[in-house]
Amino acid sequence: MPPLRPVSLDEIESIAIGAWILGTGGGGSPYLALLNLRRLYREGTVVSLMDPADLADDDRVAVVSNMGAPLVGQERLTDPRTIAQAVRMMEEVIGQRFRAVMSLEIGGGNSLQPFMAAALLGLPVVDADCMGRAFPEAQMTSFAIHDLQMYPLTLVDVRDNAVVVARAASWKWMERLSRTACVAVGSIASTCKAPRTGKEVKECAILYSTSKALRIGHAVREARRAHEDPIQAVLALEGGLRLFTGKIQDVDRRATEGFLRGTATLDGIDDFRGRTMRLAFQNEFAVAWLDGAPRATTPDLICVLDTVSGDAIGTETLRYGQRVTVIALPAPPILLTPKGIEHVGPRAFGYDLEFVSVFA
Amino acid sequence: MPPLRPVSLDEIESIAIGAWILGTGGGGSPYLALLNLRRLYREGTVVSLMDPADLADDDRVAVVSNMGAPLVGQERLTDPRTIAQAVRMMEEVIGQRFRAVMSLEIGGGNSLQPFMAAALLGLPVVDADCMGRAFPEAQMTSFAIHDLQMYPLTLVDVRDNAVVVARAASWKWMERLSRTACVAVGSIASTCKAPRTGKEVKECAILYSTSKALRIGHAVREARRAHEDPIQAVLALEGGLRLFTGKIQDVDRRATEGFLRGTATLDGIDDFRGRTMRLAFQNEFAVAWLDGAPRATTPDLICVLDTVSGDAIGTETLRYGQRVTVIALPAPPILLTPKGIEHVGPRAFGYDLEFVSVFA
Repeated sequence: MPPLRPVSLDEIESIAIGAWILGTGGGGSPYLALLNLRRLYREGTVVSLMDPADLADDDRVAVVSNMGAPLVGQERLTDPRTIAQAVRMMEEVIGQRFRAVMSLEIGGGNSLQPFMAAALLGLPVVDADCMGRAFPEAQMTSFAIHDLQMYPLTLVDVRDNAVVVARAASWKWMERLSRTACVAVGSIASTCKAPRTGKEVKECAILYSTSKALRIGHAVREARRAHEDPIQAVLALEGGLRLFTGKIQDVDRRATEGFLRGTATLDGIDDFRGRTMRLAFQNEFAVAWLDGAPRATTPDLICVLDTVSGDAIGTETLRYGQRVTVIALPAPPILLTPKGIEHVGPRAFGYDLEFVSVFA
Repeated sequence: MPPLRPVSLDEIESIAIGAWILGTGGGGSPYLALLNLRRLYREGTVVSLMDPADLADDDRVAVVSNMGAPLVGQERLTDPRTIAQAVRMMEEVIGQRFRAVMSLEIGGGNSLQPFMAAALLGLPVVDADCMGRAFPEAQMTSFAIHDLQMYPLTLVDVRDNAVVVARAASWKWMERLSRTACVAVGSIASTCKAPRTGKEVKECAILYSTSKALRIGHAVREARRAHEDPIQAVLALEGGLRLFTGKIQDVDRRATEGFLRGTATLDGIDDFRGRTMRLAFQNEFAVAWLDGAPRATTPDLICVLDTVSGDAIGTETLRYGQRVTVIALPAPPILLTPKGIEHVGPRAFGYDLEFVSVFA
């Protein structure tokens, strides 16, 4: 890949589809960010993708995301100005300019937040993130697993409110302080996380995850064009596993403490007739039980897809009667280390379950 | 008064007594700050008081306070380092050095917070505040009434957490954002409010309120020495009014949303035998009802004093059986303007009452 590769709008359409699958139910629907990018591209914007290997060690990289409850993100719409504002404010705080922007999480709409910021700031997007999927909390990143510094963080809303978490005693304190600020402004806010050096990105980020989202989305679209099964295309491409096929029978969902929490119950069809899957989520799907026994847990990616189109379904848009297929995709290796499991395994979400990968 | 006048420890003892009376039940007990200052003075510190008239127009003044629920402030002890840290962080945020420190509110322990910060920072304390008493919320200041800018604000706790409210859409938003951060760190935090210029202090602060606290405290101590009534001495000195003498019959109190809220009921004795006073508070006493009818409301100062010693009693230390005298003292004129009443009148505290001063 050349150092800076222009990304076409068609590729962004693919990233939106692939990232929504990698979102494991969270990260926010990419649709609204996609609409923004369609308009920005119509106005002449072309964002470039940067190979992380081309970052200089002392380059500064802005790590951005929209933070909050996905359900609220459907009501208070994504806005390129607020995410760019979070980055500009961070430049003021640290007194340095950024070389590039990257995504906190490649899952969901947060895959496209750096593209919106980049469009307004004239910066490239680094082909990387620090989750390789989506997760709900600040300490659930490869940067936290590597014990990098967690502050400062800037948080802005649409009303001209802005909060800087200048210091935090721990990653959990960073989560708590940024979450309460997020809840105070209405459970959705644009954030720029602790700035990273090029060296930190190269050594501690999850690399080439933007390309991965693009590849997955491209495969889905190609399969649709060829009238093949898009879900099978994703499984073949990424070495995934089909966990369940069924119909959503019940959803219990609430926006609370800045998160979207709940459960969904699925009745099996086809090969799974007579069987039941229950899914628990905190923004993202955390655990899947098959007939009462744990079948898959975080950090394995648990993805709920529309059985026909292969489109991901977010935890905020799950509804009674949807025909869905639940698949698992492999997690990035850093999340599977003992330190990784401490940060993002089932116990980190309050489930007293040992992590056993479905790919073990 | 010379531009910089050294303040003796004996004078600080008087300020503590006077400021606790001006606290109208809130601002936090000055006792813990006083213990800190006794130690700092033993170690050789002498803090100077600065006449606000001697500030240059473009001097920068740090406005400090401990923020939170007074009851929590009795458990997590006041610490000179955290309040100095809030000021140092503000210097970093604005990239300028402060000429002096001043109090947000002269009522209660927050009268002494600038002395602790000043001791560690080697700065003088300006003889002024922006409430002339104590109030629970950010928008309840003479600076807010004058529509000065409300940001930035720095907030630090004892654990190495630090939050900057970099921008706020309004004073109410500043209150909300700083309050939620304060609650997140345990409902007590050291803060440095929006920096003020010398010109702003001279034009918009409540001037010479440190001297006022000193004068009141001095009068109380002199009366005690002369075996006279200290409450009568305060009333004579400040043109105050005795509202009630009685015994505390019941207290209903809860720490909630970063505040200490509740009511106290008093049974009359002596001249008030057979009569009842009810007091409502949000950190500070807001309304006093005599036999069910409003007798006094904020911004008139409603002060509950120990009938014998004349010591103020805070809303966090009210208890059954205390013999108390409730007095009213006049509020600073800026609080009595129509704009002032909007910010700090009874309706600002949720009481559907017209403000009628007991001094009218």
